[in-house]
Amino acid sequence: MTKYIYKFDEGQKSMKDLLGGKGANLAEMKSLGLPVPDGFTITTEACIEYLKNDAELPDTLLEQLNIELDALSQRIQKSFSADESLLLVSVRSGAKISMPGMMDTILNLGLNDENVKKLATKTNDSRFAYDCYRRLLQMFGQVVYGIPMAAFDTYFNQYKTQHGYQSDADIPAEGLQDICNHFKEVYVEETYKPFPQEPINQLTEAIEAVFKSWDNDRARVYRQLNEIPHDIGTAVNIQEMVFGNSGERSGTGVAFTRNPVTGQANLFGEYLLNAQGEDVVAGIRTPKDIETLRAQMPHVHQQFVDVSKRLETHYKDMQDIEFTIENEQLYILQTRSGKRTANAAIHIAVDLVEEEIITKEEAVLNVEVKSIDQLLHPNFDEQSLKNATTISKIGLPASPGAASGKIVFSAEIAKEQAENGNKVILMRPETSPEDIEGMIASEAIVTTHGGMTSHAAVVARGMGKCCVTGCSDVEINVVDKVIHYPGGTLQEGDVISVDGAKGDIYYGEVATMKAERSEAFEQFMSWSEDVARLQVRMNAETPQDIQTGYQFNAKGIGLVRTEHMFFGPERLIEMRRFILSDTQDKRIAALNKIQQYQMTDFEAILKLSGERPTIIRLLDPPLHEFLPSSVEEKNNVAEQLNVSVRELEQYIENLNEVNPMLGHRGCRLAITYPELYVMQAEAIVSSALRLKAQGIECQPEIMIPLVSTVAEFTILKDQIVEKIEQLQQEAGDRIQYLIGTMIETPRACLIADELAEVCDFFSFGTNDLTQLTFGFSRDDAGKFIGSYLEQGILERDPFQTLDQNGVGQLVKKAAQQAKAVNPNIKIGVCGELGGDDKSIHYFNQIDIDYVSCSPFRVPGALLSTAQSEVKGGRSRV
Amino acid sequence: MTKYIYKFDEGQKSMKDLLGGKGANLAEMKSLGLPVPDGFTITTEACIEYLKNDAELPDTLLEQLNIELDALSQRIQKSFSADESLLLVSVRSGAKISMPGMMDTILNLGLNDENVKKLATKTNDSRFAYDCYRRLLQMFGQVVYGIPMAAFDTYFNQYKTQHGYQSDADIPAEGLQDICNHFKEVYVEETYKPFPQEPINQLTEAIEAVFKSWDNDRARVYRQLNEIPHDIGTAVNIQEMVFGNSGERSGTGVAFTRNPVTGQANLFGEYLLNAQGEDVVAGIRTPKDIETLRAQMPHVHQQFVDVSKRLETHYKDMQDIEFTIENEQLYILQTRSGKRTANAAIHIAVDLVEEEIITKEEAVLNVEVKSIDQLLHPNFDEQSLKNATTISKIGLPASPGAASGKIVFSAEIAKEQAENGNKVILMRPETSPEDIEGMIASEAIVTTHGGMTSHAAVVARGMGKCCVTGCSDVEINVVDKVIHYPGGTLQEGDVISVDGAKGDIYYGEVATMKAERSEAFEQFMSWSEDVARLQVRMNAETPQDIQTGYQFNAKGIGLVRTEHMFFGPERLIEMRRFILSDTQDKRIAALNKIQQYQMTDFEAILKLSGERPTIIRLLDPPLHEFLPSSVEEKNNVAEQLNVSVRELEQYIENLNEVNPMLGHRGCRLAITYPELYVMQAEAIVSSALRLKAQGIECQPEIMIPLVSTVAEFTILKDQIVEKIEQLQQEAGDRIQYLIGTMIETPRACLIADELAEVCDFFSFGTNDLTQLTFGFSRDDAGKFIGSYLEQGILERDPFQTLDQNGVGQLVKKAAQQAKAVNPNIKIGVCGELGGDDKSIHYFNQIDIDYVSCSPFRVPGALLSTAQSEVKGGRSRV
Repeated sequence: MTKYIYKFDEGQKSMKDLLGGKGANLAEMKSLGLPVPDGFTITTEACIEYLKNDAELPDTLLEQLNIELDALSQRIQKSFSADESLLLVSVRSGAKISMPGMMDTILNLGLNDENVKKLATKTNDSRFAYDCYRRLLQMFGQVVYGIPMAAFDTYFNQYKTQHGYQSDADIPAEGLQDICNHFKEVYVEETYKPFPQEPINQLTEAIEAVFKSWDNDRARVYRQLNEIPHDIGTAVNIQEMVFGNSGERSGTGVAFTRNPVTGQANLFGEYLLNAQGEDVVAGIRTPKDIETLRAQMPHVHQQFVDVSKRLETHYKDMQDIEFTIENEQLYILQTRSGKRTANAAIHIAVDLVEEEIITKEEAVLNVEVKSIDQLLHPNFDEQSLKNATTISKIGLPASPGAASGKIVFSAEIAKEQAENGNKVILMRPETSPEDIEGMIASEAIVTTHGGMTSHAAVVARGMGKCCVTGCSDVEINVVDKVIHYPGGTLQEGDVISVDGAKGDIYYGEVATMKAERSEAFEQFMSWSEDVARLQVRMNAETPQDIQTGYQFNAKGIGLVRTEHMFFGPERLIEMRRFILSDTQDKRIAALNKIQQYQMTDFEAILKLSGERPTIIRLLDPPLHEFLPSSVEEKNNVAEQLNVSVRELEQYIENLNEVNPMLGHRGCRLAITYPELYVMQAEAIVSSALRLKAQGIECQPEIMIPLVSTVAEFTILKDQIVEKIEQLQQEAGDRIQYLIGTMIETPRACLIADELAEVCDFFSFGTNDLTQLTFGFSRDDAGKFIGSYLEQGILERDPFQTLDQNGVGQLVKKAAQQAKAVNPNIKIGVCGELGGDDKSIHYFNQIDIDYVSCSPFRVPGALLSTAQSEVKGGRSRV
Repeated sequence: MTKYIYKFDEGQKSMKDLLGGKGANLAEMKSLGLPVPDGFTITTEACIEYLKNDAELPDTLLEQLNIELDALSQRIQKSFSADESLLLVSVRSGAKISMPGMMDTILNLGLNDENVKKLATKTNDSRFAYDCYRRLLQMFGQVVYGIPMAAFDTYFNQYKTQHGYQSDADIPAEGLQDICNHFKEVYVEETYKPFPQEPINQLTEAIEAVFKSWDNDRARVYRQLNEIPHDIGTAVNIQEMVFGNSGERSGTGVAFTRNPVTGQANLFGEYLLNAQGEDVVAGIRTPKDIETLRAQMPHVHQQFVDVSKRLETHYKDMQDIEFTIENEQLYILQTRSGKRTANAAIHIAVDLVEEEIITKEEAVLNVEVKSIDQLLHPNFDEQSLKNATTISKIGLPASPGAASGKIVFSAEIAKEQAENGNKVILMRPETSPEDIEGMIASEAIVTTHGGMTSHAAVVARGMGKCCVTGCSDVEINVVDKVIHYPGGTLQEGDVISVDGAKGDIYYGEVATMKAERSEAFEQFMSWSEDVARLQVRMNAETPQDIQTGYQFNAKGIGLVRTEHMFFGPERLIEMRRFILSDTQDKRIAALNKIQQYQMTDFEAILKLSGERPTIIRLLDPPLHEFLPSSVEEKNNVAEQLNVSVRELEQYIENLNEVNPMLGHRGCRLAITYPELYVMQAEAIVSSALRLKAQGIECQPEIMIPLVSTVAEFTILKDQIVEKIEQLQQEAGDRIQYLIGTMIETPRACLIADELAEVCDFFSFGTNDLTQLTFGFSRDDAGKFIGSYLEQGILERDPFQTLDQNGVGQLVKKAAQQAKAVNPNIKIGVCGELGGDDKSIHYFNQIDIDYVSCSPFRVPGALLSTAQSEVKGGRSRV
C-alpha cells in the first residue's frame, strides 16, 4: 500500500519532492522541537495519482486519512466531535516550489452548525465562534465550490450598511450568526447543495479542491512562465488550528530574519493582535512592527527572536516565517527562504559567510542568477512607474536597463541628435549591422519585429544597452515617421521610456534608480570565481565593452566579431570596393586599406587583453550584408565607387541569396577569396608583434568560422600560418598564438575528432548550431515558436536555453571526441547560450573549458558556473 | 627491402593495386600459358614513393631494375648490348584503372646509334631498323622531354615534300637515317642535351616520365571527373619488343571478343600487316576486318580465336585484346574488359549467363549503372552532332534525354505553344513550382542558374524530361525575350537542341535516336531484382510517372509530394484563399474545396499502387510559395479573392522569410493550422476506403515532414488517427495504413530512438538533411561548391552523392537506433541520393530497407542495389 500521508513527525526538509516545501519544512521544524501545531501532510504522489485517475482519490487515501485523523486526535486529545476539546484544522496546499495561482488555505475547517456552538461555549465567545464559522463558509465556498466572492461580500456589506456597522468588528455575535445562515443559503442558490456539515466531508472536498487547483489555468500559466514542470503535483497540509483571533493576548504575523530589501541583519516583520492570518494580508488594519512586540509580550518576542535565529542557522539562509500567538503561546506555522531584492541577496550571502553560518560554496547558491541583472542596470522607480502611461507591454525583454528619450526612426538621426546632446530612443521595425552607430548613440532600442536573439537584441546585450524587441502591437511607419500603438500615435521627438528588463514601454519620462555595485558584490563575485571550474570570457570588440567585461572579471575574450568593425563609414566603403572588385589585385588593394583600420582595432583590443586570451573571429557574414539597400544609399555608393547604379544593383543581385544563413559566408568566403583571411591574420599578428616590441605580451587566438570539413580548415590555416611565419621572420620575434575553429554546423560536430587533430581550440557557436540542428531560422522561427512553447512541443526556446537532447548531444559528443584526440585542445562556447544559467550548468558537466557571453552577462554567467559547480560539476552527467 | 619489381611470372590478375591493370593482366595471361612477350612490372608503390620523394626514384629501384634486366636477358637470351640477339623493349604505363591523359607507350627502347646498325644487320633490313629508331626518337622526345610533336613532324613532312615522297613507306633507309640524325639535333636544340645513347638511361628516364605523368594536369582532371583517387599511382610495364612491322608475315591488331556496339557474340576487330601498334590507331592505312585474317594466316587466326575464347571465359567478360604477329608468330600484348555501349553491355551480360560463363550475380556487375540511362532516354545521333553549332557546353547534365524545340521564356507561353502543337524548350534563369505546367508542356528545360538539385533539375528528373541547368554562359533577358550567349543571340521561337545527358546546347534541330528497351533488358533487370536486398521505390505523383515507375519494377511509391498537386489553377486559388483566411472556419471552407481535388488525386494514385505501399507526404513547402509574385498575377489574385492588392501584398510580406529553408514549413504549418493535415489525411483515407469498397485494397503510408521533436509528431499523429478512426467507423470498414515521418533535420536523427517508438516508418530526406548538416543551401551553394570540388575540399557534391562521414554517420546511427527500439519500423531514403550509385551502396550496408528515386532512375537504382549486394551487402560495414 502506497503511503500517502506523513505525520509531521515522519518528515524532514529533504523530502520536498514528496511533501512539498511547506510540508517538509513543518516536519523539519517539528523535528527541531519548535512549537508547530501538530498535523500531517498528504503527499504530492496522491495528487499526481488523483489527476491521472480522472479526479478520483487514490483507493486507500480515505482509509489512511481516517487513521491519521484518529492518530492526531489521540496525540493532541482533540476531535471533530468532542465538546470541550474540539479539533479544527487548517488545510493548505504546498508544492515543491512555492506557487501562487493554486488554492491556498482554508482555515477553521471542522466547524459546522453544531461545532460552532461548542466553540462558543468553550471559548465563551460567541462572536469569535461565529466569526470563525463565517470565515470558513466564505473561504470554503470560494475555493472548493468556486462561488464568486461577491456572492458573500455583497451581502456582508449590505448587512453592515443596513445595521449601521462601521467595521467588521462592530458586528455582534447575532449578526454574524445571521450572516452565517445567509451564507449557507448562498451555497444552495449557487451550487444546489448545502454546505457540508460533516467535518470529514469538508476535509476530503478541501483536499480534492487543492489537487484540482494544481491544474487550473492560472497555475499552469505560472508554471509555464517559471519553468516549473507540470507533473510534480502539490501536497496538502492538514494542521490543528491555533487562533490568533482569540483575544488581545493572541495575534498573528510574518517576519523575515533579515531585511529583504537591504539585506541588513535585523529581524524585519509585522503582526496584528487578535487576528487570523488573512487579516494581515487583507490590510484592513495596519500591522505593527515586530519590534513593538518586545514591549507587549517580552517573552513571546524573545522566543520568536530565538526561533528565528535557530531557523536561519539551521536552513543556512534568511527565512520568511509565519507565526501565530494564541494566549501568549507562540506557534510557528511556516518557514521558507525569504524572497529578497538582488542587493539584499548579495549582502545576506556575504554576511552569512562572515558570520560563519554558511561557506562561500553555499553562499553562491543563495543568490538567484537572474537577479544579478538588477544590480548592473538602472531600473525604473517603482512609484513613478505606477503613474506612467503604458504604450506597450508585449515586447520581449531583450536587454535589461531603463531609459527615457526622444523617439528617432533612423540610425543617422539617432547619431545626429545624440551629437546635439539629445537623449534618443531608436525605434525600428528591425535593425541591421548598418545601424550600429545609431544604436551606440541611443539610450535604448525598440524593434517591432525580431526575438530575443535578433540583431538588435544580440547587439544591445553586447553593449549592455536597454532594448525591447518584438513589440508587435506597435506599428512603425518609417517613411511618414509615425507610430501607431493601441492607445494612440507617436511622432518623432516624442519622449518615451523603455524597460528592457520587462519589455515594457511607457509614454513620457519615468524616473530611474541608478545601479550601484557594492563591495559586497565584488566580494561575492570573487567567491563565485573561486568556486567555479568553467571559466567565463566575454564576447566584445569595442574598447568600452572590453573594459566592462574585464571589470566584471572576464577571463579573456571569447569572441571578437571582426565584421562589427567594418561598418564605420570609411571602412564600409573599402569593404564595398573589395566586394565590387573583379580581380584579385583590386581586391587586395581595397583590403590593404581595411587592414590599416583593423590593425588599429586589434592593437587596442589586444592591449586591453594583455596576456588574457583573445579569440578573434575572421570575417563571417555573407558579403551582401555590406551592400546598401535603400535607393539613396545605392546612389551614394555608386558615386563613391565610380560604378553605375545598374552595375551596383547587378552585384547586389548576384550576391543575393535564397537562404543567406546557409550561403556564401564564413570560411567559404575565404576559400573563394583567400586574400581576405590572410589580410586579417596579418593585421592581428602585426599588432601583436608591435605590442610585444612595446613590452606587452598578448595571446591572440585566430578563429576560422563555419567550418564543415577538415580541408576547409587546413587550407586556410596553412595560408595564415605561412603569412604569420613570414611576419615573425621579418620582425625577428615570435608571438604566442593559436588557430582554431568555430563549431557551428552539425557536420563539424560529427567530425570533431578529425578537426581536433588540426585545431588548437574549438568554440561552439550555439546559435547557428541550434538553427541547423532543428532547421529553425532565428529570423523566422518567431512565426511558430510561440505555438511550440504554448503546446509544450518545446519546453524552452532553444535559442535561449540549450536543447540538451539534440544540440547538447552534438556538443557533448564533439567535445568528448576532441579531448580524446587532443587533450590540450581548449573548448569553449561563444553563442548566446554561453550566458544562460541552465545551459551553463550543462556545459559545466561536459568537456567545456569556458563559456563566453556579452560583457553585461559575465557576472550572471560567473555565478551560474559557480552554482553549477557547487551543485555537482563534471561527475554528475 | 621493398620489392618494387615483379616478373610477369610472379603476378596475377588480383594484383591490380600493385601492378596496375595492364601488368596484372599480362601476368595472368602469362600464367595461363598464352604467348605473351616476356617482361616485368614496376609497382605502383614505386610510383607513389617517387612522387612523395620529390621526384626521386626509390633507393633500391635501380638496383632491382638491373637485376631484373639481367634475369630477363638470361631467360630470353637477349641483351641491350648483344649483336645478334638484341633486346629492345616497350615501356608502358598501367594504372589500376585505365586512364587517358598519362604517358602511354614508348616502343623500341634500347635502340641507339650502335644498336640500330645491329638491328639492320640482324634483320637484313636497314629501312626497318631506321624506321624503328626514328619512331623511338620521336616518342621518347615527346613523352620524356616534352619536345613538341611539331618539332619532329614539320621536318619529317618537309623531308617528304622536298624529296617527293608520297607516303612514309616511300622513304628509303638512307632518308630515315638522315631524319634520325636531324631528330637527334632537335634534342639538343630543344633541351640542350643529346638523346641518351645508353639503353639503361633511356629506360630509367622513361620510367620517371611515366611516374611524372601521373601528376600532370590532364591526368588530374581525368581523375577528378572520373572520381579516381589521386594517390594510387601507376605501374610501369617493361616488355620485350615484338615487331609487327617486320614484313608481310607480320602485323598488329585489336579485337573485341564480342561486338561492343550491339553485343553480338562474334569476334570484332581489325589488324594491319607490317605495322606497329601506333599505325592502327593513327589511321593512315585502313585496317582490315579480323575475319580476313582467317584466309591470310589460317593457323594464326584460329590461334587468336582460341585465345579470345579462353580469355573471355577466364575473365568472365567480353575482352578487348591487343596482339602482334611477328613472322606468323602470335603475341598477345594486352587484354582488358572491353568498353561497350549500354545496349551491348546488357546483351553480353545476358548471353554470358545463358552460355553459363557467368552467374546472374556476376552479370549485374558487368553493366555500368550510369550506362542504364542511355537505354531509357533518346540520344542525339552522333553523326548529326558533329555538324551541329554549339551554343553552350558548360551546363550541368541535370536530367538525361535529347530534345529539340522552339525557345520560350515563360511557362504560360510554353503551355500555349504546346497546345498549338509546337515543340518548345523552356528557358528560364530558374524555375519555381508555378512553372510546373509549362515544364510538362516543354520538350526540355534549360536554366542558367541552379545546380543538379535545383527545382528544375529535380522536377525534370521526376518527369524523365530532358533538362540542363546552371548554363551560366548564357544570359536570359526574360523581359526583352532575348538570349545572349558567347557566340551570338537567340530570340523567342528560335530552334535549339538540348542534350540532357551531357549538359550541351546546340543551335537548330539535331537528329535523335529513340530509346528502346529490349527483352534482354527486362531479363537483366529481373535478375538485378532477384539479387538485391534493398528495395527500390519511386518518387512520383502523376499517373504517368507512376505508371513509368511501375513499368520499371518499382516496389511502391516512396514519396508523393502533395504540394505538387496544389499548383493547378483551380486548386491554387483555393490554396491562396486558405492562406488569406483570418479564421479557422474560413480556412476549413477553403480546405474542403481542395480536399475534393485531393481525393481524386489520391484515388488515382492509390488505385495504380494497389497493394504496393504508397507514402504520401503531407504539405511541406512554406506558404509563401503559393502566393503570386508578379504585379499582374497579384492583380488577378486580389480580384479573384476579393481583397485589395495592398492587403494581398501585406500577406505576402508577412509570410516572407529570411531563410525559407529554415522557416515555417513542414509539420510546423500543421502545428499552426491543424486543419491542414487532418484534411489531407481525410482525403487519403476516404479514397482508400472508397477503393476498398470497389474491391481494391491499398496501403497508404502517411508521412509527416520536417519533424525535429517527438511532440510535433505525436500531436499531429493523434489528430490524424482520430480523424481516421472516425472515417473508418462511418464507413464500417477498415484499411491498412501507416503513419511515419520524414527524417530531414539533424535533430530528428539525434532523437531517432524516441521517434522510432511512435513512428511506423522513417524516410530520410537526404536533401534537407545534407543542407542542414553542412549548413549549405542548395539554392546558394553554387557560389562556392565549384571551388570546393576543384580544391578537393569536397570529394563529391554532397547533394549528388551521400557525404558518408557527416550525413551518412547521422543516417546510419539513426537507422540503427530506430531498429533497435522498433524492429518493425520500415526505413527508407527518398531524397535525391536514393538514386545515386555510391549512396545506394552505403545505404545497402546499413539498416535501410528501401531507396526511392524518380521513375526514370529506378532501373539504375535497381542495378545499384544488386551490384552493392553482390559486392557484399550489410556485413561489410
